[in-house]
Amino acid sequence: MLAVGKELLIGRTLDTNALWIGRRLARMGSMLKEVTTVDDDLDEIGAALNQALRRSPDFLVVVGGLGPTPDDMTLKGVAGALGVNVRLDQRALALIKEHYAKRGLTKIELTPSRLKMARLPVGAEPVLNESGTAPGVRLVRGGTTVFCLPGVPAEMRGIFRKTVEPEVRAKLGRLHRRYITMKLEGVLESALAPIISKELGRHLGAYIKSHPRGIREGVSRIELDIAVVGEDKKRTDAEAEKIAEEMSRAVADSGGMVVSAMGIKGGGA
Amino acid sequence: MLAVGKELLIGRTLDTNALWIGRRLARMGSMLKEVTTVDDDLDEIGAALNQALRRSPDFLVVVGGLGPTPDDMTLKGVAGALGVNVRLDQRALALIKEHYAKRGLTKIELTPSRLKMARLPVGAEPVLNESGTAPGVRLVRGGTTVFCLPGVPAEMRGIFRKTVEPEVRAKLGRLHRRYITMKLEGVLESALAPIISKELGRHLGAYIKSHPRGIREGVSRIELDIAVVGEDKKRTDAEAEKIAEEMSRAVADSGGMVVSAMGIKGGGA
Repeated sequence: MLAVGKELLIGRTLDTNALWIGRRLARMGSMLKEVTTVDDDLDEIGAALNQALRRSPDFLVVVGGLGPTPDDMTLKGVAGALGVNVRLDQRALALIKEHYAKRGLTKIELTPSRLKMARLPVGAEPVLNESGTAPGVRLVRGGTTVFCLPGVPAEMRGIFRKTVEPEVRAKLGRLHRRYITMKLEGVLESALAPIISKELGRHLGAYIKSHPRGIREGVSRIELDIAVVGEDKKRTDAEAEKIAEEMSRAVADSGGMVVSAMGIKGGGA
Repeated sequence: MLAVGKELLIGRTLDTNALWIGRRLARMGSMLKEVTTVDDDLDEIGAALNQALRRSPDFLVVVGGLGPTPDDMTLKGVAGALGVNVRLDQRALALIKEHYAKRGLTKIELTPSRLKMARLPVGAEPVLNESGTAPGVRLVRGGTTVFCLPGVPAEMRGIFRKTVEPEVRAKLGRLHRRYITMKLEGVLESALAPIISKELGRHLGAYIKSHPRGIREGVSRIELDIAVVGEDKKRTDAEAEKIAEEMSRAVADSGGMVVSAMGIKGGGA
């Protein structure tokens, strides 16, 4: 993911989009590999895009900078990095007109600022944005499908659900992911470390991670995440539950206790 | 900034550290140039570090992955990228022992997991962490000072305030930054775009950005950020206020209105 916007770099806006996309992908059995956040600057956007494409991800989601204002320059930056021009796209223009028409703004003037939202990199296609003006953009470069989405969360989410997710699912096939989260007390993270190491050795490919939540009244509190991904739902669930059971026993053996456990089931296809 | 941790990529944890660091730097008159978030993986950490160093920033802050658990591998990843080994650092070990001693854990066993937190890249120095076990790490590579900080927000903030900020301030000299935020109604972002362009042409170097907040009951709502950075406090303030005044007038001329304005003063040295 490439997040574009000065507001993310100057402490103005918390990037909830990365959290949301990361969670959606994880629940599908996929994973966000890397997030890069850059300023509204043609060179920065272009360099980050090329850098991301060099890693040949299946998908690259670029979020932010599709609007009408001068600082919104994502599409120009993307085009520059790919060595193509931006060009007024009639399909994108139709989507924008339709958007205004739906809001009763049939006589709105198509100023350069408004037309800018329809200027896509050559070879790209517009994607319907049901909750905002600027269409999303889809293009393919090598083995990577690039989606450019608006930064406004409602608009980003709408396009992601409707257009990005089906493509990711089709690529993934049917993977299942099982999460379990446990709250532990009375065991220090440094005492938990060798227990986790041992468990990871037993369950190759599993994800087990501790998050220290501080020491209150002399009692150490830790949250423990367990995740297993697999093609077979039954076996995936069983392995995650086995890890939770083994971890609980090891925690008890070292003097701690599990105060709660929660299994969040991730969806398959 | 380089953020390390799978929890940031799977939608488990919202990265408030990037927001906090970005805001602190912006208020000092500096700026976070780029944030990259990667998984707990030696190769990923190393590649991202080298990538960041190639841009020769004055400072690089690496956040997360300093703890005792096996997935905490930031220092090893950093060392690998720099072509040095990690080595038990007696100063770091002293800080860790002192931390345990302060909590009455004088007889705690120095297991491999605990010693791991004292294994620093050769050439690095430990930095006191007043609110946690794992010390921070400072090292210099070329013109870049690299700080590795724990991901736990309270620990990261403590070290950032006490150790990182004074170095950044010393590098910056005395810069002032003046922010103004205005809430606008009754003007579409696409109508605001040419007004902002014109204003940016008049005030080179200023930052003016609109954030659409949706259309409610047929009325478009927008938040507008204005920021000016300069060495002279009076002139910086005056320019920001002039922009706010000119923008207000232009917004009114186009049929909108300013419903509120707030000037957040950023600190100098």
